[in-house]
Amino acid sequence: MVFSSRAEGAKTIVEQPSVGLIGIGIMGEPMARNLLHAGYTVHLHSRTQSRTRALCDEGALWQPTPAAIAQKADVIISIVSDSPDVKAVYLDPNGVCSALRENTLCIDMSTIAPDVARCVATEVHKRGSRFLDAPVSGGKTGAETGQLSIMVGGDAADVRRAAPIFDVLGKSTVHCGPVGHGQLTKLCNQILCGLNLLAVSEAMVFARRAGLDPETMLQAVSKGAAGSWALDHLGPRMIARDFSPMFMIDLQQKDLRIALATARHNGVPIPGTALVNQLLAANQAADEGREGTQALVKTIERLANIT
Amino acid sequence: MVFSSRAEGAKTIVEQPSVGLIGIGIMGEPMARNLLHAGYTVHLHSRTQSRTRALCDEGALWQPTPAAIAQKADVIISIVSDSPDVKAVYLDPNGVCSALRENTLCIDMSTIAPDVARCVATEVHKRGSRFLDAPVSGGKTGAETGQLSIMVGGDAADVRRAAPIFDVLGKSTVHCGPVGHGQLTKLCNQILCGLNLLAVSEAMVFARRAGLDPETMLQAVSKGAAGSWALDHLGPRMIARDFSPMFMIDLQQKDLRIALATARHNGVPIPGTALVNQLLAANQAADEGREGTQALVKTIERLANIT
Repeated sequence: MVFSSRAEGAKTIVEQPSVGLIGIGIMGEPMARNLLHAGYTVHLHSRTQSRTRALCDEGALWQPTPAAIAQKADVIISIVSDSPDVKAVYLDPNGVCSALRENTLCIDMSTIAPDVARCVATEVHKRGSRFLDAPVSGGKTGAETGQLSIMVGGDAADVRRAAPIFDVLGKSTVHCGPVGHGQLTKLCNQILCGLNLLAVSEAMVFARRAGLDPETMLQAVSKGAAGSWALDHLGPRMIARDFSPMFMIDLQQKDLRIALATARHNGVPIPGTALVNQLLAANQAADEGREGTQALVKTIERLANIT
Repeated sequence: MVFSSRAEGAKTIVEQPSVGLIGIGIMGEPMARNLLHAGYTVHLHSRTQSRTRALCDEGALWQPTPAAIAQKADVIISIVSDSPDVKAVYLDPNGVCSALRENTLCIDMSTIAPDVARCVATEVHKRGSRFLDAPVSGGKTGAETGQLSIMVGGDAADVRRAAPIFDVLGKSTVHCGPVGHGQLTKLCNQILCGLNLLAVSEAMVFARRAGLDPETMLQAVSKGAAGSWALDHLGPRMIARDFSPMFMIDLQQKDLRIALATARHNGVPIPGTALVNQLLAANQAADEGREGTQALVKTIERLANIT
């Protein structure tokens, strides 16, 4: 089977690989749909089969186990919640590795610990297949619109092979280094998102208590040196008291936990990130873990005794 | 004398007001130059007369005291370092208020404590004149190119009267509320800048110790949810080890000190901002107070024992 790639050009596309997608959640479902619309044969597996019905109605093919996916698909994409889930998908008795054919390209797009990505890659390589870690940024909206930012770790040849699929799912793909470097780059992304979020939360509560109109404040500061994606997208939601998730606090906490563990392992104190983690823990204590990260403003409000 | 304003339109400009500018530093000098180029008569005063020579060669007129400025100028702009400096400029025996004529428009563009702005405004109002607090964001480059962001507190009529001058100095002017609200909005700006800066500093050291290429990391994350002005402008300077000031740590610390005092007064804990303040104090302890704020990365490096 010949795979298309940016380097080879469109002329060499003979046949599209069949894609297996494991994990049909907030991210996986629209990603599978975009691959279907792009003409790929898509095999699906998810722990909760009911989540895959709509996609199967649209032409996707249900498979009962990750092993069954491995028997059918040339490229396997996994996008699940956390490191143990990825280990289970690949290494359990009915996991991908139990049935992996040679030269299959495995792409894990979950956000997990970099050392788990390396461990799974080793097992995949042992079976004569390939592995990329390719976590994404952009959330539900980015997944739906095919506008994800994709941070990839692995060999350059494998990244080229995956390029046509990344082009369906995302607006930008950056090859960050060997396996694990996609995850490490995603952790940098989450460190930045966390502290930018705290910046907006503190500024909003400061403004409110000082008697400023928060919308005027945003207008005055957002185009200059204080500007950020978080200010533009989460500030207005804080004002509107819209705490529905663009990205859930529980998942941000999972990512910050991995970032803090990785930083500790590497001997890097990141006190700001640790503070964000502790303040978001206060949201979780208030049963707000399934709200969007912008609900951090409520923790700062509680600190200021605003109820 | 008739003043132009956005509301009245260009047709009503009969004569330009003469402008007095007090404080010829990194910001004041290019601002005075832009006003000269726009055709204004510009009177200057600065504690250090030598700093005004170039401008006087270009047509500005030296005045020996703030009182002398008040005798000559229809509009007075002050832009000095800190609250005590503004008090001295307006309230000292040879200060602006000692010689203020009626209906003079005083615009303080320094970043100072909001209550000092209100106190000076009261004294100016007692003498039948007007006061705006109008701190700026955009630094030396913004001042040179007339691209400052201006955050204004005061009466709407006074803001309209100042509009043609603001249009020379800045790219955007937002009327934030009554006197003091310009300063309060600037403090929000500095809270945001401080935490966004910490975000970039922690991500850069994390990336370095994890073995990532920092430029590739920036490329991968800067266009998405982690993006910020700080990431775009300070990240590359950190990589290039360019610690020359866009904005000096000592001045950021002065602003954060005011923000923390104001927050305390209003009963708002801002723990992230307090942490930034303490970490920048470590830069000051290392004799880096006159470097740019991006030198915060060196404090995080020292925490990680990177020398």
